[in-house]
Amino acid sequence: MADNNKSGYSNLVKTLSWENGVLTLLDQTKLPVEVINEPQGSIEQVWDSIKKLKVRGAPAIGIAGAYGLLYGVKDIQDMETSRFMDVLKEKAAYLDSSRPTAVNLSWALKRMVAKAETITDLSAAEIYEVLEKEAIAIHEEDKALCRGMGENGKVLIKDGMGVLTHCNAGSLATSELGTATAPMYLAHEDGVKFKVYSDETRPLLQGARLTSWELQQSGLDVTLICDNMAAFMMSKGFIDLVIVGTDRVAANGDTANKIGTMGVAILAKHFGIPFYVACPSSTFDLSTEKGDEIVIEERDAEEVTFFGERRTGPEGIQVRNPAFDVTPNELIAGFITENGIVRPPFKENLAKSFK
Amino acid sequence: MADNNKSGYSNLVKTLSWENGVLTLLDQTKLPVEVINEPQGSIEQVWDSIKKLKVRGAPAIGIAGAYGLLYGVKDIQDMETSRFMDVLKEKAAYLDSSRPTAVNLSWALKRMVAKAETITDLSAAEIYEVLEKEAIAIHEEDKALCRGMGENGKVLIKDGMGVLTHCNAGSLATSELGTATAPMYLAHEDGVKFKVYSDETRPLLQGARLTSWELQQSGLDVTLICDNMAAFMMSKGFIDLVIVGTDRVAANGDTANKIGTMGVAILAKHFGIPFYVACPSSTFDLSTEKGDEIVIEERDAEEVTFFGERRTGPEGIQVRNPAFDVTPNELIAGFITENGIVRPPFKENLAKSFK
Repeated sequence: MADNNKSGYSNLVKTLSWENGVLTLLDQTKLPVEVINEPQGSIEQVWDSIKKLKVRGAPAIGIAGAYGLLYGVKDIQDMETSRFMDVLKEKAAYLDSSRPTAVNLSWALKRMVAKAETITDLSAAEIYEVLEKEAIAIHEEDKALCRGMGENGKVLIKDGMGVLTHCNAGSLATSELGTATAPMYLAHEDGVKFKVYSDETRPLLQGARLTSWELQQSGLDVTLICDNMAAFMMSKGFIDLVIVGTDRVAANGDTANKIGTMGVAILAKHFGIPFYVACPSSTFDLSTEKGDEIVIEERDAEEVTFFGERRTGPEGIQVRNPAFDVTPNELIAGFITENGIVRPPFKENLAKSFK
Repeated sequence: MADNNKSGYSNLVKTLSWENGVLTLLDQTKLPVEVINEPQGSIEQVWDSIKKLKVRGAPAIGIAGAYGLLYGVKDIQDMETSRFMDVLKEKAAYLDSSRPTAVNLSWALKRMVAKAETITDLSAAEIYEVLEKEAIAIHEEDKALCRGMGENGKVLIKDGMGVLTHCNAGSLATSELGTATAPMYLAHEDGVKFKVYSDETRPLLQGARLTSWELQQSGLDVTLICDNMAAFMMSKGFIDLVIVGTDRVAANGDTANKIGTMGVAILAKHFGIPFYVACPSSTFDLSTEKGDEIVIEERDAEEVTFFGERRTGPEGIQVRNPAFDVTPNELIAGFITENGIVRPPFKENLAKSFK
């Protein structure tokens, strides 16, 4: 693993911070038009921020949840421990209800409660102190994971290259360097001269609103394109490397990620461009044998037929809106993880990584 | 050529019509939210309608231009012929200035003027009468071309199929059946049960606003998807055939069409799905040897970074916005023309078609 004491990349967008007991979240729903950092005042406000997607991206939500839980118990530190524990569990369940499908939120809240349960011989105030350290640990561990991916992946990026990414697997989805973006930030820090191309990523435009914004803010040379321009850019020699993130990787390397990712992978294969997936090793789900076992969420038609208040598709039109697709393992050159790059054959090499 | 006296498809959207000396245009800028048929009152109004893209698509603009020119001279039919001819040329030049890059507009106006020049022994009123017939002929010829493509292409569409198209090469771009859509309309008329999938076609959303609307209006089973969902739909077996239009085909079969077309063609190849291009034979440009000689227009960044008034990309972000791409001939199964389907090897077979 990379040295996680190394100081962070100086110029990064700050997705969330914890300072003097205050959690501050960058309101991502306003990007890229307004940049509003919102100090959170209560657990209810954190609930609302998660619910409204002001904070998004699995790791970022988990960290916000862990800090948010502290708000729920900070004023009852004089309470008797067993009652404190009851309230803690109640508040964790409440915060978890803000986004029931967010596995990382649930995971972080469970970890906080489990930590408290190992120290019920302490006073509420002492438990609170340990819980704050645990939340900070969750935060720091995520930073270290991202940095690890960055250190391992940055060697792929060389002077003069064009690097394409899809959706947002960046700072804004995590605590610091992001996953797919981590190698880009660190290569940039090392002075490598390269260009990033960001697919806008329809229908929700995470690439336009978030990825191109955060890379621009950090001084990277980033160009926004529509999803359907990737083939043109590849055909003209602008793209030398693709790096994307992922939500879940099956045991054979099949990779679920934002809709459109598989299309990019097929184009990359056609043009002989290496296609990499960056993710922490916790994203590998070895209990899922192959990608076709992964159920694809279908989302509301209005995401496709409206732009804000503006209707762009006909009334009553049939729509398909799958949120994800699964890129077959044979299109993937490697997985950039905090432990190194895992290369084919994936079934063997992923299994080895988890021995 | 198909029988062009056969009555038109009954349920088609009416892009433009000429009745009792009045040109009526469907205002395409309001689609799909409002359906407004605008009777044109003057040549100035036609100029404005072309300028504002109320009428669009190369063939449709040409036809509107031919009718529009009639407005410019209908009130001077008592004029002496040589002065009438001067005004006719002046009005043709004026109308041509509404969209200087539209080759078909220029072509239709030149054809009208050339026709008049062959009959300057007639009175202005008699010339006007011939010109009206010439405009109607331009209109009818386009209908017949579309019908020919439809008759020749409809055999490709079979019960249970899914047919993908990209951008708008439909009724709304022509006078009647469209190019890529003509086989779909006629297969539907014949009772073939199939589904159409329409790529939304970023950045200007011609697929969402126009193609899915016109097919829906005519009772076809059409489903709208984002461009980046085509790979997913193909991987799940929903797509059996792709038909697109084109702006220009080189002598070797390389095909320029709306940005994103090449990506669809590469995906189709990957999944073993036949990819066809529908176009009248006038679209073949044998003086252009290969696709890489075709210059690709780069359009305004704002088309990508704004949705109406709503900013969706960061201020100052770099953008690429190529309007077209060129699909290499080896990805194309055939060209559906008014004379039949041209199959590979294209260089030979296209040359033969033009002997």
